[in-house]
Amino acid sequence: MTTDLLITNVRPQGGATTTIEVRAGRIAAIGGPVPAGIATLDAGGRLAIPGLVEAHAHLDKTLWGMAWYPNNVGPRLIDKIDNERNSKRTLDINAKRQSARQVALTVGHGTTHIRTHVDVDTDCGISSIEGVMATRDAHADHVDMQIVAFPQSGLLIRPGTLELLDAAMRLGADSVGGLDPCAIDRDPKGHLDAIFGLAQRYGKGVDIHLHEMGEMGAFSMELIIERARALGMRGQSVVISHAFCLGMADTPAVDRLLADLADAEVAIMTTGTPSRPVPPLVRARAAGVVVGAGSDGIRDTWGPYGNADILERAMFLGMRNNLRKDTEVEEALDVCTYGGAAMMGVSDYGLAVGKPADMVLLPGYGPTEAVVSRPRDRIVLKRGVVTARDGAALFQVA
Amino acid sequence: MTTDLLITNVRPQGGATTTIEVRAGRIAAIGGPVPAGIATLDAGGRLAIPGLVEAHAHLDKTLWGMAWYPNNVGPRLIDKIDNERNSKRTLDINAKRQSARQVALTVGHGTTHIRTHVDVDTDCGISSIEGVMATRDAHADHVDMQIVAFPQSGLLIRPGTLELLDAAMRLGADSVGGLDPCAIDRDPKGHLDAIFGLAQRYGKGVDIHLHEMGEMGAFSMELIIERARALGMRGQSVVISHAFCLGMADTPAVDRLLADLADAEVAIMTTGTPSRPVPPLVRARAAGVVVGAGSDGIRDTWGPYGNADILERAMFLGMRNNLRKDTEVEEALDVCTYGGAAMMGVSDYGLAVGKPADMVLLPGYGPTEAVVSRPRDRIVLKRGVVTARDGAALFQVA
Repeated sequence: MTTDLLITNVRPQGGATTTIEVRAGRIAAIGGPVPAGIATLDAGGRLAIPGLVEAHAHLDKTLWGMAWYPNNVGPRLIDKIDNERNSKRTLDINAKRQSARQVALTVGHGTTHIRTHVDVDTDCGISSIEGVMATRDAHADHVDMQIVAFPQSGLLIRPGTLELLDAAMRLGADSVGGLDPCAIDRDPKGHLDAIFGLAQRYGKGVDIHLHEMGEMGAFSMELIIERARALGMRGQSVVISHAFCLGMADTPAVDRLLADLADAEVAIMTTGTPSRPVPPLVRARAAGVVVGAGSDGIRDTWGPYGNADILERAMFLGMRNNLRKDTEVEEALDVCTYGGAAMMGVSDYGLAVGKPADMVLLPGYGPTEAVVSRPRDRIVLKRGVVTARDGAALFQVA
Repeated sequence: MTTDLLITNVRPQGGATTTIEVRAGRIAAIGGPVPAGIATLDAGGRLAIPGLVEAHAHLDKTLWGMAWYPNNVGPRLIDKIDNERNSKRTLDINAKRQSARQVALTVGHGTTHIRTHVDVDTDCGISSIEGVMATRDAHADHVDMQIVAFPQSGLLIRPGTLELLDAAMRLGADSVGGLDPCAIDRDPKGHLDAIFGLAQRYGKGVDIHLHEMGEMGAFSMELIIERARALGMRGQSVVISHAFCLGMADTPAVDRLLADLADAEVAIMTTGTPSRPVPPLVRARAAGVVVGAGSDGIRDTWGPYGNADILERAMFLGMRNNLRKDTEVEEALDVCTYGGAAMMGVSDYGLAVGKPADMVLLPGYGPTEAVVSRPRDRIVLKRGVVTARDGAALFQVA
């Protein structure tokens, strides 16, 4: 679905009031003569920012819209992983239904692009991949979605998982996922060789959850960068999600890792979580590293937090990184828009002539006020069509 | 203003549906026979939690409701202090007007008690104290307010400030404030002897901003505890706000400090800021330390963040301290209700028979869902009178 539309009385990025002309779903002009015979949308002086980018979600396993889940899960990572795998059956966490619900929620807040990791394991097989693919196809007009086949329960420690990942890639998953090659799989070389091998076979990228902290995480990160280089996987086709080790206190070691990530064109994803060390956002970008951001899991068996609002995520990033100047807060928002798009390898993106008309119209003096106020009043457009208003998607989910 | 009211169809703390009977502004019964001839408020199955407690605000200097302030302030603490003192004149940050605006905002989100620190310095004198006192008196039916006379620009390093603090206490301020005795005033003994001396003269407590981290902060904290003990200031009449040093990695040292705080009955206040070390909430409470929470400055010349929503603050505390179980998230909310009240020395508080009918009615399975969802749908009562609905105060401010 595409459309022609003239958006009037709009302030791109909080600048001067102008018009945005949309032709066949793309931005044809910003400012310039007002065309005749075109539908108009009066933005009422709202500012326009590019569509928000959810660069790390887990659409298949949110509990959003289900009965409240009283969480009493143990403190270790493996407690949460095992509890979740079992809960999928006992609570009927249907990947297709739940991913559609989260799509509606996410788009409602202003997101136009989602990368989601989807569980693949020997219990659920690739059924969650199939469910999320159905959601992706059903909502292709509302959001662009990338699917990462994710071995949440471990890869080598659960024989049969690699074959399932292969099946997921054959089905059309966009990237191969990975998970803590030391801490979970206990065999970093084996784990990484397996997932990079799979990525090579299908000509796809990898996106690896790396929660490992400090020196262990740094070691795993080096192994990842070595493989990206050896295989010539440049241009952010390799992504390291979370990358907590970059939050370690050893500044020179972090700077060396950042330089290597930038040089190898390996991107990172951060949620800016306040309870763990996190990559230093400004330093990473200054070093040339591409940084995207995402919600991670929301309202799931891991924890009750999250609402899939990427504008709020920009605020969290700003608070976590102590960004106070307007220019700094705008940098946090940039991570949640252009940064995420670059991390996902989406070049057909941005508030610029020739790009798809994916944007959010919302009140505020400028982007910083929008980030800290997180107004409910938002108009979301996907390829020039309004998909959400006032925090609610205009389309139905099953 | 007091009232009689029967709240029906209400779930105290998320428990079974019952009634809450209010007589002369106090909770007269929870459950029991339904009285005749009394006004009723149908809570529609909402849960009830006690009124939220904003235990650390800066009402006098928010920019809320003023033109957007593009922040370009330098990174040092002293940059922010100096910029703010100067901005008060250049931007006309009127303490009376701005504090009233923040009261409306704060009550709108569900708060019934506020402790605010109010600047006293050789530029503004005690004019901000007078302005906030006018707001306190004007809104006495909407919120209970405590005022701390706060030497934001330093005490000994700005001669004349101590005399102004004395004048503020004479005018009726509730506590003597203090600020980083090493880092800002460069004379911890001199600073603390001065403010504790003033507190003794007026028979009041102290509430000290302690941003100092690590061993320096621990040293200042020891000096504070020594004075609390020597002067017999028990029962949380001494409060240490922020207490970042309790977030240091030296766990045994932190445990010793926590034991001393508990033994001396010195309370702490935390915002759970994600960009600084913060006191470990659960460990502190387990050690017997009273912990309150607050917004700190919101939307001011220090930074753009904040909205005075103490329910959102409970979420921040939960996220910062990695609290995921329902019982843990409820503990974060407890800090934002009972903990803050105890920190402020308010014993006439709580969702219990005999206490003032200060409460928030809001949707949710239980307190944890309320904290993470932060619903806009809230009914706020102060002494049995509805003061706010749907996030907006029902009273006008100038």
